Amino acid sequence: MKPIILLNPNSSEQVTEGIDAAVDPLRALGVPIQCVTLKDGPPGIETQAQADRVIAPMLDLAAGIEASAFVVACFGDPGLHAMRDEMTVPVLGIQECAVMQALTVGQRFGVIAILERSVPRHYRAFGAMGVLDRLVGDYPLDLTVAELADADRTVARMAEVGQRLRADGANSIIMGCAGMARYRAQLEQDIGLPVIEPCQAAVGMAITRVTLMGGVQNA
Amino acid sequence: MKPIILLNPNSSEQVTEGIDAAVDPLRALGVPIQCVTLKDGPPGIETQAQADRVIAPMLDLAAGIEASAFVVACFGDPGLHAMRDEMTVPVLGIQECAVMQALTVGQRFGVIAILERSVPRHYRAFGAMGVLDRLVGDYPLDLTVAELADADRTVARMAEVGQRLRADGANSIIMGCAGMARYRAQLEQDIGLPVIEPCQAAVGMAITRVTLMGGVQNA
Amino acid sequence: MKPIILLNPNSSEQVTEGIDAAVDPLRALGVPIQCVTLKDGPPGIETQAQADRVIAPMLDLAAGIEASAFVVACFGDPGLHAMRDEMTVPVLGIQECAVMQALTVGQRFGVIAILERSVPRHYRAFGAMGVLDRLVGDYPLDLTVAELADADRTVARMAEVGQRLRADGANSIIMGCAGMARYRAQLEQDIGLPVIEPCQAAVGMAITRVTLMGGVQNA
Amino acid sequence: MKPIILLNPNSSEQVTEGIDAAVDPLRALGVPIQCVTLKDGPPGIETQAQADRVIAPMLDLAAGIEASAFVVACFGDPGLHAMRDEMTVPVLGIQECAVMQALTVGQRFGVIAILERSVPRHYRAFGAMGVLDRLVGDYPLDLTVAELADADRTVARMAEVGQRLRADGANSIIMGCAGMARYRAQLEQDIGLPVIEPCQAAVGMAITRVTLMGGVQNA
Amino acid sequence: MKPIILLNPNSSEQVTEGIDAAVDPLRALGVPIQCVTLKDGPPGIETQAQADRVIAPMLDLAAGIEASAFVVACFGDPGLHAMRDEMTVPVLGIQECAVMQALTVGQRFGVIAILERSVPRHYRAFGAMGVLDRLVGDYPLDLTVAELADADRTVARMAEVGQRLRADGANSIIMGCAGMARYRAQLEQDIGLPVIEPCQAAVGMAITRVTLMGGVQNA
Amino acid sequence: MKPIILLNPNSSEQVTEGIDAAVDPLRALGVPIQCVTLKDGPPGIETQAQADRVIAPMLDLAAGIEASAFVVACFGDPGLHAMRDEMTVPVLGIQECAVMQALTVGQRFGVIAILERSVPRHYRAFGAMGVLDRLVGDYPLDLTVAELADADRTVARMAEVGQRLRADGANSIIMGCAGMARYRAQLEQDIGLPVIEPCQAAVGMAITRVTLMGGVQNA
Repeated sequence: MKPIILLNPNSSEQVTEGIDAAVDPLRALGVPIQCVTLKDGPPGIETQAQADRVIAPMLDLAAGIEASAFVVACFGDPGLHAMRDEMTVPVLGIQECAVMQALTVGQRFGVIAILERSVPRHYRAFGAMGVLDRLVGDYPLDLTVAELADADRTVARMAEVGQRLRADGANSIIMGCAGMARYRAQLEQDIGLPVIEPCQAAVGMAITRVTLMGGVQNA
Repeated sequence: MKPIILLNPNSSEQVTEGIDAAVDPLRALGVPIQCVTLKDGPPGIETQAQADRVIAPMLDLAAGIEASAFVVACFGDPGLHAMRDEMTVPVLGIQECAVMQALTVGQRFGVIAILERSVPRHYRAFGAMGVLDRLVGDYPLDLTVAELADADRTVARMAEVGQRLRADGANSIIMGCAGMARYRAQLEQDIGLPVIEPCQAAVGMAITRVTLMGGVQNA
Repeated sequence: MKPIILLNPNSSEQVTEGIDAAVDPLRALGVPIQCVTLKDGPPGIETQAQADRVIAPMLDLAAGIEASAFVVACFGDPGLHAMRDEMTVPVLGIQECAVMQALTVGQRFGVIAILERSVPRHYRAFGAMGVLDRLVGDYPLDLTVAELADADRTVARMAEVGQRLRADGANSIIMGCAGMARYRAQLEQDIGLPVIEPCQAAVGMAITRVTLMGGVQNA
Repeated sequence: MKPIILLNPNSSEQVTEGIDAAVDPLRALGVPIQCVTLKDGPPGIETQAQADRVIAPMLDLAAGIEASAFVVACFGDPGLHAMRDEMTVPVLGIQECAVMQALTVGQRFGVIAILERSVPRHYRAFGAMGVLDRLVGDYPLDLTVAELADADRTVARMAEVGQRLRADGANSIIMGCAGMARYRAQLEQDIGLPVIEPCQAAVGMAITRVTLMGGVQNA
Repeated sequence: MKPIILLNPNSSEQVTEGIDAAVDPLRALGVPIQCVTLKDGPPGIETQAQADRVIAPMLDLAAGIEASAFVVACFGDPGLHAMRDEMTVPVLGIQECAVMQALTVGQRFGVIAILERSVPRHYRAFGAMGVLDRLVGDYPLDLTVAELADADRTVARMAEVGQRLRADGANSIIMGCAGMARYRAQLEQDIGLPVIEPCQAAVGMAITRVTLMGGVQNA
Repeated sequence: MKPIILLNPNSSEQVTEGIDAAVDPLRALGVPIQCVTLKDGPPGIETQAQADRVIAPMLDLAAGIEASAFVVACFGDPGLHAMRDEMTVPVLGIQECAVMQALTVGQRFGVIAILERSVPRHYRAFGAMGVLDRLVGDYPLDLTVAELADADRTVARMAEVGQRLRADGANSIIMGCAGMARYRAQLEQDIGLPVIEPCQAAVGMAITRVTLMGGVQNA
């Protein structure tokens, strides 16, 4: 059985490990899952330009991999639709799937973004998805790189942003980046709302798709 | 391990069998899945009144069942939000999950309804879901009960409606009722678009949820 | 002449009296109006489950009443569409009609909810109505039952929430529950915006409908 | 008791008579209702320019009339918001109120316009109202003036347009002009859907407002 | 070559001078541009009634002017669609064009209004334009006439409102009135976002239109 | 003075010549305009994958060009937001600007696409732009490459699609590709509606931006 492949389009092995840890509980379902790092990618993806620049190498990398399905494992879903164009197997994006899971959990969702400059990119995606009526807000952490390296500081700030989203009406919270699944349970407890980890949401939908595997996968 | 329970809120064992057949391939993932018929339900659910009348007995039935998750297995998702109110385990609806899967397959989706009178009910749900910008149309089969009993006639008419939805811009098609999974592959071939069977979509999302099982399930 | 019947789906006679007082000024128009309590209902309706559980007994109660029109007199409009399915006379809901009146008074409206847990239910209804572009917010009072029993405390808190809605851009305010018409004039003065009492809005629309009474009432 | 005043902003007494006949059944409620013709208006209002040119004289006319409420009795609601700015009594528009009534009758509505050139004007208004998610279409009659003078030809063509709207998904039909109430019952029978006459809808809402008459009327 | 004519529908020559100064840099493109004051207009336009009352005289004024294009130079675009009905040359509005420019600069825009009472009018226009999904908010300065006469006070308050819009998610800011271009550069610096002056945006679009001048201008 | 640079991201010099011819009339405004072909691009851009693959080389090409503004001259606007991220000068896209011009010409617009497979990509962009409420439809020509080489066949088919869009309610028509400006006048005559050529719309907006050139260009 071919594996579901999560493509981490940044070059950080640490992030890939975080993604792998996030989806590990889903391996219990028996479908092989592998995480692949795009070595040519930037250390992190912040801008639309960085996101778009990884698409071509990611398409090339994917073309050489035998997979039952692909998951683009970067919030912002770079190259998601391009992958769908070129692949015959299912292709899922972690931003898109996180939203789909959120829509089945509570009426309105909020998003915790890492960087302010990613927010307009997220809004373009939510607009293209047609889900803005369900979105309360997408608020950034506004932490420096140094602060982000401090796990306690990061999770405390994520809880703070999540509480603001709750006060503004959110019924569920999406973690707006990959590789932070280890904070999920803590956040859920601190905020008092369901917290959705996007890689888990996407792999879950991929498992369903590969198990059913019909004739036409991407339209 | 407690099973995922699909509740068929109509009293037709034949429909329950169709639902069971639809989700059978997903049993390969190892999560137990059971289908339960609401014996007090009507033979079929056509109107909002019929849909609403099954909620109380369905809530009572569910209260006595040990489940890891519930799936309301009737297009229209009667009692979905009430179930979420009363349950601590995940509750999914087949209409909602079919839409979520459709949104990850192609840009715009179409729905094949059985009856014209169900269409306004579907539109209310799509409006509440906030996904009308992605919907091309929800067109009914307009077949008599006698015609619906004829499988060839039914699938031919479903293909016809699906082709109209494609001509109007749909990139994927949702089967707007439970228990017809046996027609899915044929329809996909006839229409040339991905065809989503709603019970499969919902059980897939339920499996992910029960496998990850966090603290707060419904918000 | 058959009366317009307001159905209070909770069992509180005190609430029914409040509803009756709200619509009493409209009796001047000469159309008989009666308020009926669903004795089998819960003391109050807070959750979607409670709202859905009253539908079947409410349908049964209504089936035995001669009415020129029905008004579902609970914010959230439980069973509104089911009633329309089963009745040939007009059926109005107080939430829906309050919104319709608000849309003819000012550009954007705000809603004062009693309980936070009702808010997602309201949003689903506003989404199904397709009026979210006109909604500023739906904010709860967050009062305990004891505090709600204190009229001064309640009206002061309602004014506070109304002023927040005004600051956020609301041009009119909807009282998000039945039976509080006695606070309307005070609130209007405190907030400085038109305040809409939903039972009055619904009975007004019902009176028009029964006076004109065409052939097809619910579609 | 001051009357509700319907202002017909075109100079056609025949249209004013049609408006008066439309609202006559509502006189049974005991609130005085008068129809006034804007003698300085054009014989008919087709363009936005014609609609806008009648606002100033209509405001001047209204300033000299003692009314409990005003209804702008021209589909397109010219001057509705200007009237609200300058008046302390309720001001309703027939297009706006027809939509509000339609939204309480069925899920999606259609509009029969007289002229193709009025359609963009209607869409601007529906967009400003925020109700486009409920609109199926606004289709014109495309009849010449000579054909419009022929009642049988007109009603037959209205039924044809109404049937197209029904086929496209409409659950109710709005007559997109004033003064044609005499065709309503026939259309309802021909189309098989509720047909809403806009002057009746507006006077109904005006009667409620003047009967309750709170402190702040227009926001 | 006929000039592009900006019509200032209020009678303030000072505002007309501010408009002229705003568009002066665009004269470098060689297309003649003239600003005309509607002497019959009010000193300023605050209400919808004032806005609507200037339409007829503005239409009459425009009818006597040879122009290659018209720009309605009042935020709120009074008479924009009426002008399009009666003119064969392009007609642009400064509110509409400011929004169009904003949509090409950043994902979400905010508007600085002068008066709170203009805000509902703006929202009606944004709804008719169908751009509410891109709007963060439209917040008023809430300054008295005396304060508005104080340039330092005004620009400081505009910066304050702009910063609130930025904090709420705006990526660009529209100045919601004509004649204040002199503050643009300062505001851009203070807020740190692109600031759009509406008269400039509209004249820019008019220049393109008159340079290309096809056969059908207004539809 | 640095030129406005139009980047044709496909390698067809013939298309670049068509783009140059389209914008030639705007050279009368005195701002230098140059068209540049991305020699590494594919002969034509049909899929999202092709569109995304040109972004990196386009960014690299642009980085080496002195420009006052850039226009991405491919309908679909590949790399538009990435360019904005990396550039300090204005960056416009022809799809986005065509829509902005359409919104100032008539209430609802239609789009003539070349290929059916581009349509979902367009809808994602219109959703991200938040303009779906103004869109009537985006219909493809469905012509083979051989047929597209026949100018008479192509323009006849474009007129046919345009007339269908008009019948469905469009008030203006956008040509959904670059390099076909030579057909614009003929189409306008055949369809009877304003026809917008997207390169012209974008260069027009670019000219305004470079003439005013403030401090912050992309947000």
